[in-house]
Amino acid sequence: MISYSFCPVCGKPLSEGVIEGRTRMFCASCGWVHYRNPLPVAVAYTVNRHNELLVIRRAHEPAINEWALPGGFLEEGEEPHEGCLRELMEETSLDGRVERLIGIYHRNVDLYGSLLIVAYKVVVVDHECMTPNHEVSEAGFFGECNCPQINIPLHRHIIEENRRFENLAGVTGNPVL
Amino acid sequence: MISYSFCPVCGKPLSEGVIEGRTRMFCASCGWVHYRNPLPVAVAYTVNRHNELLVIRRAHEPAINEWALPGGFLEEGEEPHEGCLRELMEETSLDGRVERLIGIYHRNVDLYGSLLIVAYKVVVVDHECMTPNHEVSEAGFFGECNCPQINIPLHRHIIEENRRFENLAGVTGNPVL
Repeated sequence: MISYSFCPVCGKPLSEGVIEGRTRMFCASCGWVHYRNPLPVAVAYTVNRHNELLVIRRAHEPAINEWALPGGFLEEGEEPHEGCLRELMEETSLDGRVERLIGIYHRNVDLYGSLLIVAYKVVVVDHECMTPNHEVSEAGFFGECNCPQINIPLHRHIIEENRRFENLAGVTGNPVL
Repeated sequence: MISYSFCPVCGKPLSEGVIEGRTRMFCASCGWVHYRNPLPVAVAYTVNRHNELLVIRRAHEPAINEWALPGGFLEEGEEPHEGCLRELMEETSLDGRVERLIGIYHRNVDLYGSLLIVAYKVVVVDHECMTPNHEVSEAGFFGECNCPQINIPLHRHIIEENRRFENLAGVTGNPVL
């Protein structure tokens, strides 16, 4: 994680001080304060019409080469479910529809710091045309028996939370991993 | 909203360019990019043991003097439900327990730009000791009949979503506004 040394508004060196109960960097010249907030991320638990789960293999850090659920950072001005579908589209060229919110989570990651992760269940009707982008080395829809192992703890947790919900709600044939 | 003109890492003037499909400010000297993401906020739909709703009157902009649900920005490293309870504690000195996630929303606000709002239902057992802080001019728990009017559209929406859920789930006596 990068730390800030200069004021992005006026360019003067920043000072350190306690502001609103926390140690923060601030600009003694113009008053700008570096409030540090979690970065919002959307994750898409995506199934096709056969209820197979989409997993992608990450081509970048963090977790390079790991199998994962698609997702990425929300952009300014973006509804979280729209950001989720945009990330899915960018990474795989798939056009999805959000079915429901699965949950919201927090994780600290070395590369980016504090992340606020919003996970949605997404359904893709036409999955034939998948084209992974540069962030993805492999991608596919998998049933329970042939799904690559997912090691990222949060992604395993999201899959588990979705399974628990669907079991409670009586949804059949969900891709339990 | 403040715009950035200088690199917070190396202090050089920023340039404008298209990076990952969006116009962003970046540092041609050290490579820092100003990715702009929604700022995460937690809102607490808070009831006491009589199922009365906590509403506070805002003492600061935005929406100064409006009646509202308590809440505020999530801090780095903070679980969203913990940030929700911290904000409740700071604004009212009340110790709450999160019952469930109500929903997640996006709004653009003049003062802060893009906000990602996480709303939780919170229950407070001991509400006798409430002490509003400097952000709050008045606060109280109200039943349906005597609740001050809440004009902030998102807060009305959160109340409505909670009502819809509780009606579906068969929860009785919820404070319908």
